[in-house]
Amino acid sequence: MDLLPELKELSKKTPSKILLVVLDGVGGLPKELGGPTELAAAKTPNLDRLAERSALGLFTPVAPGIAPGSGPGHLSIFGYDPLKYQVGRGVLSALGLGIPLGPGDVAVRGNFATLNPDGTIKDRRAGRPPTEENRRVIEKLKAKIQEIDGVRVELYTESEHRFVLVLRSEGLGARVTDTDPQTTGVPPRPAEPEDPDDAKSAKTARILNRFVELAREALKDEPVINGVLLRGVSQKPDFPKLPEVAKVRAAAIASYPMYRGVAELVGMEALGLREDEEDPDRPRAKVEALKAAWGDYDFFYLHFKKTDSKGEDGDFEGKVERIELFDALLPELLALKPDVLLITGDHSTPAVYKAHSWHPVPVLLHASYLRNDAARRFTEDEAAKGSLGALVGPVLLPLMLAHAGKLQKFGA
Amino acid sequence: MDLLPELKELSKKTPSKILLVVLDGVGGLPKELGGPTELAAAKTPNLDRLAERSALGLFTPVAPGIAPGSGPGHLSIFGYDPLKYQVGRGVLSALGLGIPLGPGDVAVRGNFATLNPDGTIKDRRAGRPPTEENRRVIEKLKAKIQEIDGVRVELYTESEHRFVLVLRSEGLGARVTDTDPQTTGVPPRPAEPEDPDDAKSAKTARILNRFVELAREALKDEPVINGVLLRGVSQKPDFPKLPEVAKVRAAAIASYPMYRGVAELVGMEALGLREDEEDPDRPRAKVEALKAAWGDYDFFYLHFKKTDSKGEDGDFEGKVERIELFDALLPELLALKPDVLLITGDHSTPAVYKAHSWHPVPVLLHASYLRNDAARRFTEDEAAKGSLGALVGPVLLPLMLAHAGKLQKFGA
Repeated sequence: MDLLPELKELSKKTPSKILLVVLDGVGGLPKELGGPTELAAAKTPNLDRLAERSALGLFTPVAPGIAPGSGPGHLSIFGYDPLKYQVGRGVLSALGLGIPLGPGDVAVRGNFATLNPDGTIKDRRAGRPPTEENRRVIEKLKAKIQEIDGVRVELYTESEHRFVLVLRSEGLGARVTDTDPQTTGVPPRPAEPEDPDDAKSAKTARILNRFVELAREALKDEPVINGVLLRGVSQKPDFPKLPEVAKVRAAAIASYPMYRGVAELVGMEALGLREDEEDPDRPRAKVEALKAAWGDYDFFYLHFKKTDSKGEDGDFEGKVERIELFDALLPELLALKPDVLLITGDHSTPAVYKAHSWHPVPVLLHASYLRNDAARRFTEDEAAKGSLGALVGPVLLPLMLAHAGKLQKFGA
Repeated sequence: MDLLPELKELSKKTPSKILLVVLDGVGGLPKELGGPTELAAAKTPNLDRLAERSALGLFTPVAPGIAPGSGPGHLSIFGYDPLKYQVGRGVLSALGLGIPLGPGDVAVRGNFATLNPDGTIKDRRAGRPPTEENRRVIEKLKAKIQEIDGVRVELYTESEHRFVLVLRSEGLGARVTDTDPQTTGVPPRPAEPEDPDDAKSAKTARILNRFVELAREALKDEPVINGVLLRGVSQKPDFPKLPEVAKVRAAAIASYPMYRGVAELVGMEALGLREDEEDPDRPRAKVEALKAAWGDYDFFYLHFKKTDSKGEDGDFEGKVERIELFDALLPELLALKPDVLLITGDHSTPAVYKAHSWHPVPVLLHASYLRNDAARRFTEDEAAKGSLGALVGPVLLPLMLAHAGKLQKFGA
């Protein structure tokens, strides 16, 4: 369901301010049926008080049963039907690193990997090297590979084992398969055009395969990082922009590249706050950045990552702690008196599941013109009783805009 | 919402096993407001115990207010948007009888009817004759009609008043109206192409009208079965196949032709268990067939018909009994330890309504990674409190696949 064309017609500029908080992967599961989830186990006095004066519901970003990646999860929150507005991983990573992409450029997400002597994959992430090590290897590759067949090749460190490869040239396509087989014990696959008659993508595949060869040659004496895996070959999609759709000046406060990238793709400005060695998520710095920018924008997307990271680590208690940490910051957000405050996640990452899951995510809406509701806490069980009900797909944006007084009625 | 293309991308082969139980038409209504539905009136100790350890919800196969036929109801459960994936009744019946259909063949569902001397319809089902009587009349017709205008005409007994007519030839269309007016006291209608410019369908209509004439002539001395009514003129649609979409080996255990037919249409293998004179539904035999096949497949669709039949008869107590009969078999299903067990219906058939209805159907999901929920029994009222919430459209397949660990996340 794509409501963006209607929203663009109905939206109007107002001075009201919307604060959208995404607690990445915040939805969870009980360790045992009947027990508390991470949100239920957390001591969250501020969220609890807020929930009593808010409307709650359960949000399914894509569709029941579908575990969203971070891109689709966020696009859905931002109002973009993730089944329609699809973005490649390479583009997301490139945008998040602030790499400008022209319409024909091709971005690819790379992993540094460890290959066995027989060419099969030993470790798809080369033991998750420190980012400094990644930088050293990128410099080594850049010294040897700048161009292939007249196509400019650019390499960028993302973090740990992750890098971004950008090809710049006319006449490239991006319908190209991954070289990453997503498993170990087998060799990397060759990049191939999805359609053999697609000459532009065939050219891209040829250049990527040559890059893989050159990289192996350049890294042949490295003890750990001796191979590369490529995926998410993609070009920048031309999505409608939130500032035009919703008539808002929109700012993103997120430290991780991916989230800055998806925010920029929908036309938000990613404020100058990046991850930090000490605490990549930088929750305190984010709140300060929000305060500093409060007068300059009217739509704020504030992202906290570590609820997801702890869930992926299977660290139930760690996720509980990060929820409690957010709870402690909440009074400062409320002190800004946003006209609309919406708190949710882009998906669930239950610690017992250790991965993104398909379970609906609690959503809390604090604004004027709310219905009464029975939900007393920002938890999965309570949200199920909330007056927002079950929300499926890209419906949070229209809800936020409506409560902010930014939407006219539809039809006469 | 058609999720099949995404599911095909996201699904992966695993050894986990899914058991899908369809209690046909199981949803019901109270005799009086405040009273128990059929499910609530039934004594179901095994289902009750299971419900306490499961997630429940209410499932609307097509859309609110839409009472699904068996085909659309099942297609939705199987993951196929029934508004997009439409199948004619003739094709469903033909497949259920095991009649092979080529891509251009036309299948038509026929009723034997009793006509008044003036040609109006007296009984649309000719008093529901015994199937033996149907066979006798079919042989009589086959002796006289094998071909019309170069098109091969095949006739098959289905059961009671129901038969199937298949036309085999090049150049036939299937956008043809029914001759069955769905009422008595009026004459049958002529078959007509839906679009007069559709020459292929016009040819089919011409042949069907000639068949109706020839059949009346052949049956003119019959005391009861002296006419035919045709509907559901259709050709076999080329749907995506569940084994490819979900990477499962899928088996259907159903005795009635229609259900075997729809299962085969989505690529399931219908196991060799057909209806029986004594008990056409054969619940005990189905459980034995399931046990025997347990090692050979990883997706099982197990169909029980009589909950629907009793509902259609207006037999509240009879429907309660069939629910209790299923409850008694449930421990044998649980003993197989499916990784995912989903129990639902393809629609409601409330005894007080005596027909398929639009009311949501309870759904019970027993699997790993469940949320807590407040539903304590597999009933309409309790399911409304369940953690699965309100599920609309073809979302049960992705839910089953997700809980079976058969789906990767969507997007990065």
